[in-house]
Amino acid sequence: MSAPVAVLGVGTSHFGRQPGRDLIALAHDAVREAFDDAGVEQVDAVWVGTVFAPAGVAQRVLRAIGITGVPVITVENACASGTTAFAEAREAVRSGRHGRVLALGLEQMSTAFAGAIVPEPTDPEGRSGLALPALYAMAAARLLHEGSVTREQLAAVSVKNHAHATHNARAQYSGEYSVAQVLDSPMIADPLTRLQCCPVSDGAAAAVLGRATDTSGEVVVRGLALRSGTTWNHRSPHVWGHDLVRDTAADAYAEAGLGTLDDVDVAEVHDAFTIGEVVTTEALGLCAPGDGGAAAAAGVTALGGKTPVNPSGGLLSRGHPLGATGLAQIAEVTWQLRGAAGGRQVDGARLGLVETMGGGVSVLDGNACVVALLERR
Amino acid sequence: MSAPVAVLGVGTSHFGRQPGRDLIALAHDAVREAFDDAGVEQVDAVWVGTVFAPAGVAQRVLRAIGITGVPVITVENACASGTTAFAEAREAVRSGRHGRVLALGLEQMSTAFAGAIVPEPTDPEGRSGLALPALYAMAAARLLHEGSVTREQLAAVSVKNHAHATHNARAQYSGEYSVAQVLDSPMIADPLTRLQCCPVSDGAAAAVLGRATDTSGEVVVRGLALRSGTTWNHRSPHVWGHDLVRDTAADAYAEAGLGTLDDVDVAEVHDAFTIGEVVTTEALGLCAPGDGGAAAAAGVTALGGKTPVNPSGGLLSRGHPLGATGLAQIAEVTWQLRGAAGGRQVDGARLGLVETMGGGVSVLDGNACVVALLERR
Repeated sequence: MSAPVAVLGVGTSHFGRQPGRDLIALAHDAVREAFDDAGVEQVDAVWVGTVFAPAGVAQRVLRAIGITGVPVITVENACASGTTAFAEAREAVRSGRHGRVLALGLEQMSTAFAGAIVPEPTDPEGRSGLALPALYAMAAARLLHEGSVTREQLAAVSVKNHAHATHNARAQYSGEYSVAQVLDSPMIADPLTRLQCCPVSDGAAAAVLGRATDTSGEVVVRGLALRSGTTWNHRSPHVWGHDLVRDTAADAYAEAGLGTLDDVDVAEVHDAFTIGEVVTTEALGLCAPGDGGAAAAAGVTALGGKTPVNPSGGLLSRGHPLGATGLAQIAEVTWQLRGAAGGRQVDGARLGLVETMGGGVSVLDGNACVVALLERR
Repeated sequence: MSAPVAVLGVGTSHFGRQPGRDLIALAHDAVREAFDDAGVEQVDAVWVGTVFAPAGVAQRVLRAIGITGVPVITVENACASGTTAFAEAREAVRSGRHGRVLALGLEQMSTAFAGAIVPEPTDPEGRSGLALPALYAMAAARLLHEGSVTREQLAAVSVKNHAHATHNARAQYSGEYSVAQVLDSPMIADPLTRLQCCPVSDGAAAAVLGRATDTSGEVVVRGLALRSGTTWNHRSPHVWGHDLVRDTAADAYAEAGLGTLDDVDVAEVHDAFTIGEVVTTEALGLCAPGDGGAAAAAGVTALGGKTPVNPSGGLLSRGHPLGATGLAQIAEVTWQLRGAAGGRQVDGARLGLVETMGGGVSVLDGNACVVALLERR
């Protein structure tokens, strides 16, 4: 068992289209809050997760907010870049390389993209149409065909997460939608309608990590795993991403010494599209196989249900500034474990799970997954 | 003292403008050679250093060359991205996180840039003219003004490194130039002429790291440090970059248990511009303060001199594919320590030094430096 690492403080910016605020302003909000929360003014090293910030920008941002003279390493792992930065920061503390480390996630997408992420010209799958919405839509179509999910159950994920976000003042979108309204929103990639797709977002999120002090109430990393995928196994009975999430979670549970997930009180998972949450809750074992859609529709994964999933609103509603997302999830789970999540608090949450899935800019490139288990001592 | 980590194998592509070869082809050359050299077919994790490869490309490249299913983390640290990947790979082995790790550096600049790197619109120094050639030219002008270097001594660095590269079949450029020819080449940023500036390059380089086995002849990492800079201290008597190189080297020497550098037999350092090598050899302590230019002119740092610097031809002549550069330096020093450097062999080299300096895309952004000491057992 590794030396325990604690999440000393977390912070985030607001999430949304914020073209008038640059990465420096967004990072300042997140880091200031995380430093104040941790009661620190300095760290020994920084890992920055970002996907589209140009080379050198991370250091420019850090300089502007007064963090210089400590090692800075920028990491990219597609949508899992933020949790990859968290994983590296945690490893640096665990191994004794550094005492106190900042993990910072950054992304400003509204100024870089007119809409969805555009595949690179070198990406044959992307150029042939397999951009991310299409990939997730294929997964949804497959499960619809097999009968393990319905269109209404998919829509229920969006209804739930938008409703959760009504309690999150930092969320990009929120609202009390009906299943019919979700299904009636414009079709993006059949069967996924617009309210089932994450928006274009700007934001930053941060966590300060350090050695655990065995203080009551402290939030510690109980288990964490990072995996990258093999090429998609077309012979697997499961859709894209499922097996990687399942295997990464198994690593994290093993480190945490958890056999089953019955103890997980709250989870933030990668719902870039509604089908993503359905597949992921099943792959994680939070729901029985084939039960992810039904669980969302029945309220099992809603606030007040057995295992609330994405109380923050998730990527669908809080927003999805790629590099910041993983650390926004870490921040949410940390607040939940401390009982500081306000109107979206999961009562008595003690063990929380974060899962982030990164595909390539388009899709079959290879992917990355991080699963973290945080626990309140 | 850390558990010793060995460089099990190294490899590189050819360096040069190779717009017809994509990153997959370049990476294949480097990784195939490194795997064959190490006698391995698999690694447990991969760190990839690249500056301009778009998000997700590293995983696409790795998939294409058959490396999937192991954790992949892409790192960016400007021109020090390759040695940052090496530093992270070494740390992963040192701490016991992974047994055998690939560090891969990748860059294809000829297809991305028409010429010099263009600063981001968000970079005020870059926009006001302080792109990298101008920054280095300011340093050169300062030392010329102070009288610690002459134009002819600066040119001698270019003469030396181009001559070294005549023995390196993988180098982008090489040739027997005179000081006058270097000074007569077109002016880029006064006093730096074109033959004093690194070219636009494509290339890949790789190293496989693992636990040292105490075998005679094995190349091990004796010391390694990574630092990021503070904002440029205008009150320092030294030019940009000097103090960061000096301090990073001090960390690496301390880990290696070396008080002085008298034992360094060969060095590959960051000569993106001739002045860079002059400042760096002084900052590293390979030359006395103010003696870097004179040392180059007198042949002290040439093959056959006391401490040969950049036997590969350096960035000036071998080329400077940003993310690949640091690992190309590691490969060169490894070959030197094994006595496998052919016509550019430094006789009996036993302790070698690698130094890489990364600025932002333009300059005052904050910078990063890695210094590694490799030793043959």
